[in-house]
Amino acid sequence: MFVLVNAKTYPCDVVEVAEAAREVNETTDARIAIAPQAAELAAVAETGVETWAQHIDPIEYGSNTGHTLAETVADTGAVGTLINHSENRLKLADIDGSVQAAERAGLETVVCANNAAQTGAAAALGPNAVAVEPPELIGTGTPVSQADPDIVKDAVAAAAAVDEDVEVLCGAGISTGDDVVSAGDLGAKGVLLASGVAKADDPKAALEDLVAPL
Amino acid sequence: MFVLVNAKTYPCDVVEVAEAAREVNETTDARIAIAPQAAELAAVAETGVETWAQHIDPIEYGSNTGHTLAETVADTGAVGTLINHSENRLKLADIDGSVQAAERAGLETVVCANNAAQTGAAAALGPNAVAVEPPELIGTGTPVSQADPDIVKDAVAAAAAVDEDVEVLCGAGISTGDDVVSAGDLGAKGVLLASGVAKADDPKAALEDLVAPL
Amino acid sequence: MFVLVNAKTYPCDVVEVAEAAREVNETTDARIAIAPQAAELAAVAETGVETWAQHIDPIEYGSNTGHTLAETVADTGAVGTLINHSENRLKLADIDGSVQAAERAGLETVVCANNAAQTGAAAALGPNAVAVEPPELIGTGTPVSQADPDIVKDAVAAAAAVDEDVEVLCGAGISTGDDVVSAGDLGAKGVLLASGVAKADDPKAALEDLVAPL
Amino acid sequence: MFVLVNAKTYPCDVVEVAEAAREVNETTDARIAIAPQAAELAAVAETGVETWAQHIDPIEYGSNTGHTLAETVADTGAVGTLINHSENRLKLADIDGSVQAAERAGLETVVCANNAAQTGAAAALGPNAVAVEPPELIGTGTPVSQADPDIVKDAVAAAAAVDEDVEVLCGAGISTGDDVVSAGDLGAKGVLLASGVAKADDPKAALEDLVAPL
Repeated sequence: MFVLVNAKTYPCDVVEVAEAAREVNETTDARIAIAPQAAELAAVAETGVETWAQHIDPIEYGSNTGHTLAETVADTGAVGTLINHSENRLKLADIDGSVQAAERAGLETVVCANNAAQTGAAAALGPNAVAVEPPELIGTGTPVSQADPDIVKDAVAAAAAVDEDVEVLCGAGISTGDDVVSAGDLGAKGVLLASGVAKADDPKAALEDLVAPL
Repeated sequence: MFVLVNAKTYPCDVVEVAEAAREVNETTDARIAIAPQAAELAAVAETGVETWAQHIDPIEYGSNTGHTLAETVADTGAVGTLINHSENRLKLADIDGSVQAAERAGLETVVCANNAAQTGAAAALGPNAVAVEPPELIGTGTPVSQADPDIVKDAVAAAAAVDEDVEVLCGAGISTGDDVVSAGDLGAKGVLLASGVAKADDPKAALEDLVAPL
Repeated sequence: MFVLVNAKTYPCDVVEVAEAAREVNETTDARIAIAPQAAELAAVAETGVETWAQHIDPIEYGSNTGHTLAETVADTGAVGTLINHSENRLKLADIDGSVQAAERAGLETVVCANNAAQTGAAAALGPNAVAVEPPELIGTGTPVSQADPDIVKDAVAAAAAVDEDVEVLCGAGISTGDDVVSAGDLGAKGVLLASGVAKADDPKAALEDLVAPL
Repeated sequence: MFVLVNAKTYPCDVVEVAEAAREVNETTDARIAIAPQAAELAAVAETGVETWAQHIDPIEYGSNTGHTLAETVADTGAVGTLINHSENRLKLADIDGSVQAAERAGLETVVCANNAAQTGAAAALGPNAVAVEPPELIGTGTPVSQADPDIVKDAVAAAAAVDEDVEVLCGAGISTGDDVVSAGDLGAKGVLLASGVAKADDPKAALEDLVAPL
């Protein structure tokens, strides 16, 4: 299972979270990565943890003031990027452009989607994975695997119907190892989570709990 | 074949174009519709021509100042709507919401897309049709069926792979009856065009030429 | 005092509201106008009431699918337009472009703003008026003149400091004639309101109450 | 004079540009700063050059995936930020929110504007400075001080009329020391430039030329 921790713009010590993740990663078969803010990518990558961006723009080198270039993200040591997170939704054509930009720069991609139909749509653009996150569950602490397990199953089916190589991650409300196991049982290959780790008093303990049952 | 004429915000007499379309429609097996600006929907629908909106928003009745509500569009007599035109691109989640809003109001939907991958993505959201329009050909007078026939074939295949009920229209550069025939030969069930009719000196003659070979 | 009723996308009979407004307008020194959805502009203008658009785009005649052209709005019989309503916020450059487009088409303009600083900014772009509407009060029924009278005074001062010809309207939470009087006492030349009239069981009675103390 | 170099997403070695700027800064009364991409802020700040962000978002600590937080920018060592660059235009309310966010985090602000009216509008929001950059001149190599000197004078007057503490920078087409001198003669307190330094074969020589006549 892939455990991708989105640190958002939380008031956390993201380097401490990153070091915890790197240490826990060595003790488990799970794969753990941290997605910090753009300005923190280099510092997080220096810890040795697998580092992801939270967003890239559908652009190339050139005149793009204030935008996030895939190549610059890759230069920091990051290896992947979220695209179209519910807090940063993109136009369809720009998701397509961002997936292509990531591919060009050698970044892995997880495109976020709200439901099964959007998961199928995102899968048609050829990312590595789609994270299905019903917006109404984000930040609630209620895992989608409990609140609405069908949405995960339907998303897995929708992605597979479009492109068998596109994996599905389960987002929204993941906070325990049981949630991760449930997500896997429903066909997800990983989880996307945020506050459960990034805002935990003890991020290392939170990560250890998450991967313990795997 | 479905011939959908997008009148954009051209300086044309859209009621005259609508009346021409209604008259030509009676002489052919093709199906002709006109998409005027929102403020002109009622006047165009009154001519008796099949009337489409150029855009709707992913909203319900409520506090949405300056937005286009599917139900209000339907109340004017319009029966369908474009969504995500390249001059009005939407976020993925908003295309999804707009398709659902149109369905709720009983409007047919044509979602626009730039290429085959986006056509597959749009098809996953369940519209009636997807119009594939490579942005670089819009307004050039060079039909996509000549400039890049594979993009139409690929789009037809991409839509069919996701949902066999979703038809493909061919946009960008259509101006003659031969272009319409070529589009049909490549698997398209219709064409989306604009200046070729809406800016023609004689819109009726332009439409007659378009449907003559059908 | 100018009483501008924004009908949003409420499920109201906007023509009935318009007729009520026209009738009440004849009985008072106040000036009453109705802002319906774009697709309803012509039907509202036909009632003879002063008609405003809820939004225009910063465009000219041309290729602008799904956008609202100032000239087309004027052709329906509308004489003014809201710009940058809090439910339809625009980029600074696009507010500038929209004010210019309205001027070109002979439409009056009311630019919306959240606070005194933004009122000054909007005034610098040369509209006829700025409507100050603290977002947290919109739809609450608590008039800004009660909840935060200083914001109205500060907005009037901010506009006057930039351009003495730019009037200030008071929005958010207006529902009674006393609210209108209070707004005037604070220096506003009118009010922008919505649900208090457009969603009233008896729009005519609601308007009569609003203008009674004037 | 303030010389602010926007490195955009150019394929340049921004640390080399930063080191050149730091060295030239020690030889002149001018004040030189570099604005790199967010992911490069820390590396640029480490060179000791004055470092600016290209953009911040109107947000606070919290759930804002993929956005740029003023506090995180300040934590890298940056001391200022561009806002509303023509390649990254913001809504009026978001310029206001971004200026407030910068102030909260202790960052200086330069808001970009296209013309004198927008310069006045931006000045009303209380930034440290406004950079006037006619979009049609950006990247042309034709300095606004030559192509349209009145726009600079008008912008200086518009800002001063609104708030005497808001300075004006001159952008678009600056590439020589004479351009900088001309900008100062027109009332500008600095220049905003990009390719002339960031894409120069020898950034240090380019900067030396720029500040030589000061």
